[in-house]
Amino acid sequence: MTLTTRSTHACFGGTMGFYTHPSTETRTNMRFSVFAPDAARHKPLPALYFLAGLTCSEETFMIKAGAQRYAAEHELILVACDTSPRDLNIAGDSDSWDFGVGAGFYLDATQAPWANHYRMGSYINQELPELIETHFPVCHDKRGIFGHSMGGHGALVTALRHPERWHSVSAFAPIANPCAVPWGEKAFGHYLGSDRDTWQVYDASILMAQHAHPSEILIDQGLSDQFIDNQLHPAALEVAATQSGQRLNLRRHAGFDHSYWFIQTFVADHVAHHAKIMQAS
Amino acid sequence: MTLTTRSTHACFGGTMGFYTHPSTETRTNMRFSVFAPDAARHKPLPALYFLAGLTCSEETFMIKAGAQRYAAEHELILVACDTSPRDLNIAGDSDSWDFGVGAGFYLDATQAPWANHYRMGSYINQELPELIETHFPVCHDKRGIFGHSMGGHGALVTALRHPERWHSVSAFAPIANPCAVPWGEKAFGHYLGSDRDTWQVYDASILMAQHAHPSEILIDQGLSDQFIDNQLHPAALEVAATQSGQRLNLRRHAGFDHSYWFIQTFVADHVAHHAKIMQAS
Repeated sequence: MTLTTRSTHACFGGTMGFYTHPSTETRTNMRFSVFAPDAARHKPLPALYFLAGLTCSEETFMIKAGAQRYAAEHELILVACDTSPRDLNIAGDSDSWDFGVGAGFYLDATQAPWANHYRMGSYINQELPELIETHFPVCHDKRGIFGHSMGGHGALVTALRHPERWHSVSAFAPIANPCAVPWGEKAFGHYLGSDRDTWQVYDASILMAQHAHPSEILIDQGLSDQFIDNQLHPAALEVAATQSGQRLNLRRHAGFDHSYWFIQTFVADHVAHHAKIMQAS
Repeated sequence: MTLTTRSTHACFGGTMGFYTHPSTETRTNMRFSVFAPDAARHKPLPALYFLAGLTCSEETFMIKAGAQRYAAEHELILVACDTSPRDLNIAGDSDSWDFGVGAGFYLDATQAPWANHYRMGSYINQELPELIETHFPVCHDKRGIFGHSMGGHGALVTALRHPERWHSVSAFAPIANPCAVPWGEKAFGHYLGSDRDTWQVYDASILMAQHAHPSEILIDQGLSDQFIDNQLHPAALEVAATQSGQRLNLRRHAGFDHSYWFIQTFVADHVAHHAKIMQAS
């Protein structure tokens, strides 16, 4: 579990850092970023993981969301990872912006040529937390996860599949029902194959209908989001929550689109949501 | 004074917008961005202009600084402009990152081939405010200006040269004494020619030593800034302030570098500084 520090920067009394490590899951080097507030110098803090959307990297959220000041206020460590393995030059991995590089969909691929490297599901759920818990002053029993769009899908799926490992979860404009939309069908078809039954364990609405996560889930969705009707389907989560009794706070916001201008507006509420749950548990 | 809206986005209850217009000063299309908080729907607000540093654009500050929430709180309109004219293909304008495109230094060039287009001094001081005051709900008598690095130089010089037009001024890690450092010597030599006497009207330390600006000036400087000793020279401003009686609050911050991680940490103080002065005047 070696770690290379690419850069660190003072920020809001703490440290914003960018790192690389060789991943056993993806069999290549992976990048991630960590914001550790000043309080982390004195005690282990809960860690809150952010999963970004299509085309993004481990830098996007840290640069654009303005979350560091809230993490410092609430004494949480922020972790952001990349959206896929990179630099593998697998045939077809860079032909489109919604599949392959930058579009790992936070699952473990089962189909060639993706299965050997596209294992972001296990990477996020297991390998990255183990690495963070080895190298940073974080609590080993308090993990929160959130994300945007494809990363909102990833956060919901990861927490719903492994509720014992993830104590709090939220999402901005998640791909809520990927089995039923073009982004999900394309990605799942390539990564998981043509048998749609195998897709269901990566669909937040299907998972949520079966088992509720123990904590309330916060979701924000802009009503001027250009992807709401054809890719996101937030209402599917409301139906699922009714079926399983999931406590769900799905907020719709008039005028907001799919961008980080939307995320930066509501990120304070998300950090507070995770802090409240993790610090109470 | 035509204006093309490239995009608008809901953000912190207001609107983040990106615009293009044909500039009479630079004789090409110029880009800028405006954040107008909700309060701007009801009354004209003071406008606060940000000038970015080398290699940046009208997007950089708006994306990376996290200033919108503070502008919404203090009811200020934020304006950010580009750092030079672009797409002119003047020979030599893209050979280096610290001169030409992305490096207009907020002055009016007098030397060929730059003099016809590189007129960012008049653009910032006159043309852009007139455009903003025509098309946005801003007060016509309350303008603040701040900036980072090359843009900190630009903000200080613009306000010190035209104190009747700029009521409040601040800077992050400004090039405080450009006549005495490599970045300034390179830019001024090309834009203004070899007669160093002509450079002085664009040097904040020289200007400040001659005439104090009526308002207190806030400057933040990181002590781990990689450019502090060879390019920035903040102490020159302290010497100048003593000579003219300028009220100067120059704060040095251990551990902080030249990045937007530094800016986002202290931007709340800058927005509050401008709001206090402009709303009192």
